[in-house]
Amino acid sequence: MLDFKYFAPTKVLFGRNTEDKVAELIKEFGGSKVLIHYGGGSVIRSGLMDKVTGLLDEARIKYVKLGGAVPNPRLQLVYEGIELCKKENVDFLLAVGGGSAIDSAKAIGYGYANSGDVWDFYAGKRKAEKSIPLGVILTLAATGSEMSDSSVITNEDGLIKKGYSSDLGRAKFAIMNPELTMTLPDYQTACGCTDIMMHTMERYFTKVETMELTDTMAEALLRTVKKNAIILRDDPKNYDARAEVMWAGSLSHNGLTGCGTDGGDWMSHKLEHEIGGLFDVTHGAGLAAIWGSWARYVYKDCLHRFKRYALNVMEVENKGTDEEIALAGIEAMEDFYRSINMPTNLRELGITPTEEDLVLMAHKCALGVGGGKGSAKFLKEEDMLAIYRASM
Amino acid sequence: MLDFKYFAPTKVLFGRNTEDKVAELIKEFGGSKVLIHYGGGSVIRSGLMDKVTGLLDEARIKYVKLGGAVPNPRLQLVYEGIELCKKENVDFLLAVGGGSAIDSAKAIGYGYANSGDVWDFYAGKRKAEKSIPLGVILTLAATGSEMSDSSVITNEDGLIKKGYSSDLGRAKFAIMNPELTMTLPDYQTACGCTDIMMHTMERYFTKVETMELTDTMAEALLRTVKKNAIILRDDPKNYDARAEVMWAGSLSHNGLTGCGTDGGDWMSHKLEHEIGGLFDVTHGAGLAAIWGSWARYVYKDCLHRFKRYALNVMEVENKGTDEEIALAGIEAMEDFYRSINMPTNLRELGITPTEEDLVLMAHKCALGVGGGKGSAKFLKEEDMLAIYRASM
Repeated sequence: MLDFKYFAPTKVLFGRNTEDKVAELIKEFGGSKVLIHYGGGSVIRSGLMDKVTGLLDEARIKYVKLGGAVPNPRLQLVYEGIELCKKENVDFLLAVGGGSAIDSAKAIGYGYANSGDVWDFYAGKRKAEKSIPLGVILTLAATGSEMSDSSVITNEDGLIKKGYSSDLGRAKFAIMNPELTMTLPDYQTACGCTDIMMHTMERYFTKVETMELTDTMAEALLRTVKKNAIILRDDPKNYDARAEVMWAGSLSHNGLTGCGTDGGDWMSHKLEHEIGGLFDVTHGAGLAAIWGSWARYVYKDCLHRFKRYALNVMEVENKGTDEEIALAGIEAMEDFYRSINMPTNLRELGITPTEEDLVLMAHKCALGVGGGKGSAKFLKEEDMLAIYRASM
Repeated sequence: MLDFKYFAPTKVLFGRNTEDKVAELIKEFGGSKVLIHYGGGSVIRSGLMDKVTGLLDEARIKYVKLGGAVPNPRLQLVYEGIELCKKENVDFLLAVGGGSAIDSAKAIGYGYANSGDVWDFYAGKRKAEKSIPLGVILTLAATGSEMSDSSVITNEDGLIKKGYSSDLGRAKFAIMNPELTMTLPDYQTACGCTDIMMHTMERYFTKVETMELTDTMAEALLRTVKKNAIILRDDPKNYDARAEVMWAGSLSHNGLTGCGTDGGDWMSHKLEHEIGGLFDVTHGAGLAAIWGSWARYVYKDCLHRFKRYALNVMEVENKGTDEEIALAGIEAMEDFYRSINMPTNLRELGITPTEEDLVLMAHKCALGVGGGKGSAKFLKEEDMLAIYRASM
């Protein structure tokens, strides 16, 4: 197994009404002037924003608000947030929402605390040296950004979607009340479950020797999300299922399920980033749409992991050759996606890229990963194009 | 399921030669004058201490050393450490060793940073308000103290063994190099594996409704330790098995395997604390010696969990009544203990307490938990005595 670093310092308050503690937590981490960053109107309509600002008022914590974070959050809003922080002398960021608001807030923190253009960090030109403290009230279980070191921002100039990872961006606290996720549309819930599973699956599919403890805990997490995604399809207000999925979302992307590996494959994410950059689809659905084609393209090069996945996660019968078992696992995963109304190709995703689009996406994807990437199988531009074509 | 808090901020560097980073990490967390706290001569004989002080010298970090932390670490040495910290104006604690050195260092930190008698915290009279930063180089996988909020100290005056838990005591960093555990005697390795499993088992055996994610990950951890404990019995230098056990030790006691429960039962630990206070046995062996008697005494009151444990951890056949399956699981666990040369009663532990001793231990145990305790089954003094008697 490989050496690893594990660092997940976020203080998690999990359960009903945990948002009541928001002012206390902001004070604990030294906040006195807060930028509350959020997305659309749902946190306002639900009354959550009023509750939060009421608690901050009561605790005499000052704040300014900036809404408008959208899925695949945009660089322009990040710039706007940085300017607002400067103007208002903000010393704490509070993201209220899902991954979009959190990722956008992380980028605002980097841009505000460091000089120069924040996009440099995402473009890989330099590293952030500091940030300001970030807290999260999570309303959507999906990206795991509430405990992760990563954020993804889309630059409108060329629709380039780029990720940046730094421990400086890890949230100081995350408030997770499963009830806050109950009003999500079914489609968003299913996309969230897909994204959560993919964060562990990306780490799981690797050719290097792994840790048994990491593998078995990863498999436990995947089975749990799979089971509860189906419960939520039929019973979206099920508190326990919401809770299982929400906590799995954090553990799936805080590093735990990758300890002792090389970090994992991540090509499904990279391939999806280009789809998301060009077509603005929901990330989870994009992942589901590309995964099957990726898996069928690479599984022979990482057969022992695909077999193990088939047996221990998809629980297919241990019958036939390794290849047959691996393929049965991929099929079972696609059946699962279909069962929660997720797409298994780009057509089902609702987009119809032209051959030129595919060529462009493959080119941008290859460029973005420095020519090639992948741990289950190392993919170059021609491989990426082949997978995109197969996913039509 | 119940609400929970999860907070495990320790930065973990895991793998070969990670101790090379010790000076860098101390600086990262602001240390300039360090108390290096350790146990016996093994860290000196192995050359680890020379390596550490060499790195600190090189980085121009000042330090003083205090050895002598023993299993069931003593209050007197804690007082000595506090005085030394005061005299030397220490601003960072580095524990080099296992749970004894770490627990002792945590206590030194509380006593040094707060006024008054440090024993007050352990006696439950008041709470620590601060501490100073603590780093760990772990040389023994067992107590999980490197990521946990807890420490246990024995007051020589009456041999009272008491625990104190506070997030203030959590280590800033933990350096875990599995190679540093390779020279441990087989008995210590087995005791460590037992202790590690017990930290999750204590959380697992509860009557409250639990989280599926927590349960399945806990079961994965338990199976992994069980498997690797047997590998280490036969092949003590097996790096991968050392690594699996070492990482499991941290995850088993950092809070992860208790998320969404009531915290668990913990009566095996409480019962063992009194044995350890009176007879100074190795903690893990004491736990193994008492567990079977505890389990047989309580299992009917928590039958669904004992059945689940039997099936998912001990992997016994799903045949017979729930009671039969639960009992088969307890027997299988005792067989496992025997297979790694752990005791399953006090006689095998090598002690022969008198009836008066048992009465005294039960009395002290009941007093220590405010009359009664237990989540699998609530135990009062007479129950404790019955379990002690059954464990003879």
